[in-house]
Amino acid sequence: MMFLQILFTFSFLFSSSNALDFCVGDLNAPQGPAGYSCKNSEAVIVDDFIFSGLRVAGNTSNLIKSVPTPVFSTQFPGLNGLGISLARLDMAIGGWVPMHTHPGASELFVVIQGTIRAGFISSTNKVYCKTLEEGDVMVFPQDLMHFQFNVGKSPALAFASFSKASTDIYVMDNAWFANDLPVDILQKTTFFDPDQIKKLKGIFGGTY
Amino acid sequence: MMFLQILFTFSFLFSSSNALDFCVGDLNAPQGPAGYSCKNSEAVIVDDFIFSGLRVAGNTSNLIKSVPTPVFSTQFPGLNGLGISLARLDMAIGGWVPMHTHPGASELFVVIQGTIRAGFISSTNKVYCKTLEEGDVMVFPQDLMHFQFNVGKSPALAFASFSKASTDIYVMDNAWFANDLPVDILQKTTFFDPDQIKKLKGIFGGTY
Amino acid sequence: MMFLQILFTFSFLFSSSNALDFCVGDLNAPQGPAGYSCKNSEAVIVDDFIFSGLRVAGNTSNLIKSVPTPVFSTQFPGLNGLGISLARLDMAIGGWVPMHTHPGASELFVVIQGTIRAGFISSTNKVYCKTLEEGDVMVFPQDLMHFQFNVGKSPALAFASFSKASTDIYVMDNAWFANDLPVDILQKTTFFDPDQIKKLKGIFGGTY
Amino acid sequence: MMFLQILFTFSFLFSSSNALDFCVGDLNAPQGPAGYSCKNSEAVIVDDFIFSGLRVAGNTSNLIKSVPTPVFSTQFPGLNGLGISLARLDMAIGGWVPMHTHPGASELFVVIQGTIRAGFISSTNKVYCKTLEEGDVMVFPQDLMHFQFNVGKSPALAFASFSKASTDIYVMDNAWFANDLPVDILQKTTFFDPDQIKKLKGIFGGTY
Amino acid sequence: MMFLQILFTFSFLFSSSNALDFCVGDLNAPQGPAGYSCKNSEAVIVDDFIFSGLRVAGNTSNLIKSVPTPVFSTQFPGLNGLGISLARLDMAIGGWVPMHTHPGASELFVVIQGTIRAGFISSTNKVYCKTLEEGDVMVFPQDLMHFQFNVGKSPALAFASFSKASTDIYVMDNAWFANDLPVDILQKTTFFDPDQIKKLKGIFGGTY
Amino acid sequence: MMFLQILFTFSFLFSSSNALDFCVGDLNAPQGPAGYSCKNSEAVIVDDFIFSGLRVAGNTSNLIKSVPTPVFSTQFPGLNGLGISLARLDMAIGGWVPMHTHPGASELFVVIQGTIRAGFISSTNKVYCKTLEEGDVMVFPQDLMHFQFNVGKSPALAFASFSKASTDIYVMDNAWFANDLPVDILQKTTFFDPDQIKKLKGIFGGTY
Repeated sequence: MMFLQILFTFSFLFSSSNALDFCVGDLNAPQGPAGYSCKNSEAVIVDDFIFSGLRVAGNTSNLIKSVPTPVFSTQFPGLNGLGISLARLDMAIGGWVPMHTHPGASELFVVIQGTIRAGFISSTNKVYCKTLEEGDVMVFPQDLMHFQFNVGKSPALAFASFSKASTDIYVMDNAWFANDLPVDILQKTTFFDPDQIKKLKGIFGGTY
Repeated sequence: MMFLQILFTFSFLFSSSNALDFCVGDLNAPQGPAGYSCKNSEAVIVDDFIFSGLRVAGNTSNLIKSVPTPVFSTQFPGLNGLGISLARLDMAIGGWVPMHTHPGASELFVVIQGTIRAGFISSTNKVYCKTLEEGDVMVFPQDLMHFQFNVGKSPALAFASFSKASTDIYVMDNAWFANDLPVDILQKTTFFDPDQIKKLKGIFGGTY
Repeated sequence: MMFLQILFTFSFLFSSSNALDFCVGDLNAPQGPAGYSCKNSEAVIVDDFIFSGLRVAGNTSNLIKSVPTPVFSTQFPGLNGLGISLARLDMAIGGWVPMHTHPGASELFVVIQGTIRAGFISSTNKVYCKTLEEGDVMVFPQDLMHFQFNVGKSPALAFASFSKASTDIYVMDNAWFANDLPVDILQKTTFFDPDQIKKLKGIFGGTY
Repeated sequence: MMFLQILFTFSFLFSSSNALDFCVGDLNAPQGPAGYSCKNSEAVIVDDFIFSGLRVAGNTSNLIKSVPTPVFSTQFPGLNGLGISLARLDMAIGGWVPMHTHPGASELFVVIQGTIRAGFISSTNKVYCKTLEEGDVMVFPQDLMHFQFNVGKSPALAFASFSKASTDIYVMDNAWFANDLPVDILQKTTFFDPDQIKKLKGIFGGTY
Repeated sequence: MMFLQILFTFSFLFSSSNALDFCVGDLNAPQGPAGYSCKNSEAVIVDDFIFSGLRVAGNTSNLIKSVPTPVFSTQFPGLNGLGISLARLDMAIGGWVPMHTHPGASELFVVIQGTIRAGFISSTNKVYCKTLEEGDVMVFPQDLMHFQFNVGKSPALAFASFSKASTDIYVMDNAWFANDLPVDILQKTTFFDPDQIKKLKGIFGGTY
Repeated sequence: MMFLQILFTFSFLFSSSNALDFCVGDLNAPQGPAGYSCKNSEAVIVDDFIFSGLRVAGNTSNLIKSVPTPVFSTQFPGLNGLGISLARLDMAIGGWVPMHTHPGASELFVVIQGTIRAGFISSTNKVYCKTLEEGDVMVFPQDLMHFQFNVGKSPALAFASFSKASTDIYVMDNAWFANDLPVDILQKTTFFDPDQIKKLKGIFGGTY
C-alpha cells in the first residue's frame, strides 16, 4: 500500500495543469502586441499544430505568374507566440515576385524545384542578387526589399520561413497604387511621372 | 578609529568598478549583432553621452529641399545598446521626404516648426495621412513606408526618434535606382516602364 | 475577360485583412505584460497615430517652475507595442526637474529652446553633467537617475523620447515623501534626519 | 493661497493613475504569449508580491526521496511579466532529481543545506558535474538537461531561480512514460528495449 | 552646374557607409551572447547570404536510416543575428529521428516528399502526434522533445526551420550515453536498468 | 565491418564542435551590449558554472549592519548571456539595506533565516511593505526602489535573484553623496537642506 502511494505521489510530482509551452492563438479573443490570446490549453489538439493548406500548388494564373501562400499566425494559430512562420511560393515559367518586405522579419528562402534568381537591396543601396538551384538557401535580412524570378524552363517551387509568427507580404506597388493615395503625393515621394502613376493605379486597382 | 573604518567599509560596500549601465560604442573594435563593442568604461566621459551636431539647420539646397540629419549609434556611439536614436529634419518651403522605411525601427515624429503633412501605408495598403501643426506628434509603426511634406509657408523643422540605436534611412528610390540593378529586373519587380526607370536611374546616379 | 480576371486576382494576391503592423491600445480591454490589447484594426483611424496634446506649453507655475507632459501609451494608445514614447518639458527661468528615473527606459533628451544643464549618475556613482545648448542631444542610459536645470536667461523647451511605449516619471522625492511611508523607515533607508523627512513629507503631501 | 496652489499642483505633477511597473497576473482573464492579463492595478495589494507557500519543507516520501516546489507565475501571479521565478527543492538522504529541463529558462541553483552533486549535459554531449557544498551556486544554461543528488549524510535544501516567469519542470521519463505513447515509437526514438519501456510505463503510470 | 551639384548632393543624402542591416558572422573573431562578431561590411558579398550545401541528399546509411543536415550560423554565417536557421532532413524507408530538442528554438517542419509521422510531448506530458503528407507543416514549440518517422513506402525529405540563428540538435540518447556519465548516475536519473544503460553506452560510443 | 561503420557514422551524426548553449564570459576580451565575449568553448570547464564565494557570511561590521554579496556576470562569468544573477544578503541584528534599485532587473527575494521587513515603492508612489518569515518570497518589480530591515532577534540571511546577468546595486544615497555632485544641484533636485546634504556627503565620502 505504501509503495503504491509513493508511486502515485511520484506520478503527479512534476505534473502541471497549466502548460505555457505554447499559446495556440484564439482568433476571437483579445489580441495584444505579443500576438493573439491563447486558446484554453485543455482544448488544444494535435491539429492545432498542423497546417495542411500547402499540399497543393497555388494558382499561378495571374499577372506575375506566381503565387505566395502565407502561413502566418492568422492562418495557422499554432504559430502564435513561437516566433516563426512560413510561406509556399509557386512560380510558373516566367513568373516573378515584385519588390516587397516582411515587416519585422528576416526570411530564409529554400528552392525546392526549379531555378530562381533572387536578390535583395541593403540600406546602403547595394544589390545582392544570384541564381539559386534546387536545394539552395538564401537569407533576406530583416526589412530589406527583395524579389524573385523563375529563370528556369519549368515551374518553380520554394518555401520561405520568417523569423516572426506574424508578418505580412508588403509589396511596394500595392502599398503605393492599390489605394487612394493622391497622384501628386506619389509623384513627389516616388519620383515617377503622373502618367506612369495613373497607369499603375489602373493595374493595381487604386483610385485617383 | 573603528568608526572611520566602518564608514570606509560602507562607502565601498556597494561600489562596482565595472559598470554595465551603458556600453558606449567603440567604432574600431569588433561589432556584433547587438551593436558595437563597449569603449573601456574608465575612459568614458560626459561628452560620450552628448551629441552637438544638430545645433544648426542642415542644408536644404537639394532636389527635395529637405535634409535629414541622422544620429544613430554610428554618429553618436553613446546610443550603442540603448535602443533609441534620433534624426533632425529640416525642410525648406516646398520640401519633402520621399517614401522610406527605417529597418527594424518605429519612428516618433514631432513637428517643432511649420506645418507638415505626413503619412504612412500599412501592409494592408491603407494610407494614414494628415497635416500636423507645431507640437503635433505622429508615430510611424515599425517598417512601414512613410513620407513627409512641408505644406506650410515657412521652413519646417521636426525631430524624429527611433526605437533602435542603429537603423538607417532606407529610401525606396535610392534602393532601386542608385545602383546597377538591371532595367529588366526593375521593370518587372516595380511595374514601371523602362523609360521611366532609365530616367530615374539618371536622377539617382545609377547605371544600366 | 481573362485579362480582367488576372488583374482582379492580382490585386488581392497580397492583401491581408488582419494587419498586425500595429496594435493601437484599447484602454478598456485586458492589459498584459506586453501592453494593452489591440483596438479592432478595422476601427483604427489616422488620428490613432497622432497626438496633439503637446501644441502648447505646460503651466510652469509650480514649485519647480517646470512641467513635463508625458505621452506614453496610456495618453497616446497608438504607441502601444511600438517601443517608443515621448515627453515635452517646459522650464521657466530658474526651473528644474528633480532626481528621477524612467523604469525600464533609456531617454534621449533634445534641447529645443534655451540652455539646460543636465546630468545623470551611473551605478558606480559617477556624475555625468554638462550644459546643453539649443539642438544638443543627451542620452540618459536606462534606469539611471538624472536631473535638468534651466540655466539660461529665458524659458527652455525640450523633448525627451523613451525606449519604451509605457514608462513613468519616477521621482525619488515623490516615492519617499508623497505617501505614508513611516519616518523611521525613511530615516534609516535614506539617512536623512527625522526633521528633514517631516519637512519634505509636508511639501510632498505625505503623512506620518 | 498662491503658495498652496503651487504645492498642490506639484504634488500631482508626476502622479500617474495607471502604473505599468508590474502586471500581477489575473489567472481568470485571457492569457497571451507574454503571460497572463494584468489584475486591475487598483486592486493590487502587497500580498500579490509575496509567496508564503515555501515556509515548510515538502514531503519527500516518494520514489526519488525529493520534492521540488515550483513557484511560477501560475502559483505566484505577482511574477507575471517579470522574467523570473523560483523553486524550493527538498531532498531526503539519498534523494535525487531525475533528468529534466525547464523550457526556455536558465536555472541558478543555490545549496542552502547539505551536500548536493549536480550536473548538466551540453548539446555537444559534454557532462559538467560537481559536488556542491552549502552556499555554492551552480548555473544550468537554458534548456540543457540536468540532475541533482543528495550525496550528504543529512537532508538537503536548495533554491533554484529561473530566468522566466513561467516555465515547467520537464522530466524526460515523465514525458516518455507517463502517457500513452506507443512502445514501438519509444523503442525506436529512445533505443530502449521494449521490456524496459514497459517496466517504466508501469512505474510512471503510463499505458501501452 | 547648380543642378548637377543638387543631384550630386541628393544621391549621397541618404547614403550610409556603415550598414547594420545584417551582421555576417566572422567565425574567427570574438563571439558574444548575441552571436558572432560581424564580418567587415565592405567585404560582404552575395555568397555570404547563400548556402549551397543542401543541394544533395544526405547519406542515410546509418543506424537510424536518416540524416539531418543543419544550417545554423556556424555553417552559414549569413544567418548570424537574424533569428532564423534551417535543416534538411533525409529519411530512407523505415528511417526515423530519435527524441531530441533544439535549445531555445521552435521548429517549423515541412514535408517535401513522402509520408512522415511526427510528434512532440508537452511539459504536461501530453503527446501530440500525427502522420503528415507532402506539403504538410507541423510546429514543434520551443524546447519540447519531438521525433519523426518515415512511415511511407519511399524515402522522405523535409525541411525544418528554427526560430534562432544558432541552436543545436540535442539528442537525449547522445547526451546520456555518448560520454563518460557514470552508470549509477544514469540509472537513478533515467530509471533505466544498468544492463540497458551499458548496452546503449556501447551503441553510442560512451564509456563506463 | 559495415555495422561498425554505421555506428561510427551515427555517433557523430548529431555532434557539434561549436556549442552555443552558453557563453562563459571572457573578462579580458571585448564586451558588447549583450555582455562579455565568450571564452573559447573548448576551454570551458565545470568550475566556470560554479561559484563558491557565497559559502560564508559577509562581514556585517559596518554602518548598516548588513552586507550584500553580489554574484553578477563580472563576479561569475558563467552567468554571461543567461539572463539571471544572484546576491547573498547577510543582516546582523538591527541591520538594514538603504533605498536602492537594480537597473534593468526584477528581484526575487527569499528569506532563508530570520525575519525581514521588506518593501518597494511603485512609480505611482504607493508603498508595498510587509514582514517576511523564513521561506517567504517577495518580488520587487524591475527598477522600483526597495529596502529591507532585519526586524527579528537574530541575524538574518536572504538570497536575491535578478532577471539579468549583469546589473548593479544602485543605492540612491551613494549616487547622490559619494561623489562631487555640487550641493546646490543636490539641494534643488532632492529638496534637502544644504546642511543635511553636507552631513551625508561626509558620511558617504563625497566632496563639496
